[in-house]
Amino acid sequence: MSLLEDLQWRYATKKMNGRKVPQEKLDYILEAARMAPSSSGLQQYKLIVISDRALLEKIKGIAYNQSQITDCSHLLVWIAWDGYSDARISSVFNYTMDERGLPHDTMDGYKSVILNLYEVKGQEWQASHAAKQSYISFAMAIAAAAEQKVDATPMEGFLPEKLDELLNLKGSGYKSTVILPLGYREAENDWLVNMKKVRTPKEEFITEMTIADAAEIGEDRVDLDLTTIIKK
Amino acid sequence: MSLLEDLQWRYATKKMNGRKVPQEKLDYILEAARMAPSSSGLQQYKLIVISDRALLEKIKGIAYNQSQITDCSHLLVWIAWDGYSDARISSVFNYTMDERGLPHDTMDGYKSVILNLYEVKGQEWQASHAAKQSYISFAMAIAAAAEQKVDATPMEGFLPEKLDELLNLKGSGYKSTVILPLGYREAENDWLVNMKKVRTPKEEFITEMTIADAAEIGEDRVDLDLTTIIKK
Repeated sequence: MSLLEDLQWRYATKKMNGRKVPQEKLDYILEAARMAPSSSGLQQYKLIVISDRALLEKIKGIAYNQSQITDCSHLLVWIAWDGYSDARISSVFNYTMDERGLPHDTMDGYKSVILNLYEVKGQEWQASHAAKQSYISFAMAIAAAAEQKVDATPMEGFLPEKLDELLNLKGSGYKSTVILPLGYREAENDWLVNMKKVRTPKEEFITEMTIADAAEIGEDRVDLDLTTIIKK
Repeated sequence: MSLLEDLQWRYATKKMNGRKVPQEKLDYILEAARMAPSSSGLQQYKLIVISDRALLEKIKGIAYNQSQITDCSHLLVWIAWDGYSDARISSVFNYTMDERGLPHDTMDGYKSVILNLYEVKGQEWQASHAAKQSYISFAMAIAAAAEQKVDATPMEGFLPEKLDELLNLKGSGYKSTVILPLGYREAENDWLVNMKKVRTPKEEFITEMTIADAAEIGEDRVDLDLTTIIKK
């Protein structure tokens, strides 16, 4: 099946049957999440995997009692950086340069550009920016699960601060952003399974634009040339 | 090829050759973006597609002069809701109910729960929440492009307010969130094409947790039961 067929097959499973997802399929889904791209390649997030029933029971209590939390096979929790710093960014860039056999200072010009950019935005913006990157990884896991015919429920319905507390994230520099129970549908008790998948109609979702639709904004160009900065 | 192989094949293309992506492949990628899941199924975003060279030239000027903007075949621009309102959410839910042959009030309980939740968070949070959803769609387009062997460059390096102005989004209720040039690599002039793809090592990226790793947070459960609310 193609990605598009997989996306048509999947749905936000409302009732799961507790069946276990084989380790091989779980590993595949986690690997897709790990391979996702992220802004400046910083991978500002990590994944927590939970299958312990007692812990899932506790999470259910702070996730609006949604049954998938305890009927799933594994719960994936994305956690993202709570802010940016020179040390944090340097650590990722240095690792990348090591892996590529390049000197650590290769990205210094680029690093100072993004650090300056992030600094003025403040920590709330930074955390939100990091969280957005985790959604790309989250989406890749959703697509990978569908490809493996593993059901999943993309979920924001939980109390993030309570979850951070429960998972001992306070002081870790990470905050939970989004969660994904993986498992298998219990179709006969799932009200959504046979409902039509509804999306914004194509004509409304996609707009083509040309210069004729654009506004005049003058010659207000950015002088900075990112390509040159990265290549040094 | 599997999704994982596609993700390993893709990279943030730094130099494109101007070759056109066939309409059929473009349509496939746009359809994958449209089929992405979103929070409460609201699909709080849309897509603008640009291949007009004069407009791309203008965008390049507010996108740190990145060459892919003008060397791509098509530029995809995600735009997301700038905030939530009863009218906006009702309009999507009503359409969904119509498509499913259900009465408009089917989701009323759920709708008031999320409206109350969103209202207290303020418009900046709301826009950021909508933007996060657009990143799921963005990721599906990235995966779909890789599957179609179309190169793409996930990009946040542009001035969003300037782009909103240029694309006449002021007053539309939408804000640009992220952009994706689609096209084909010019490998001989692309410094990144042969670099090793670097990701956080698996052992560091994934943490398994059990109840033994959790903190005691007491019996602070949420009384609200989302499942019951949705099913009425």
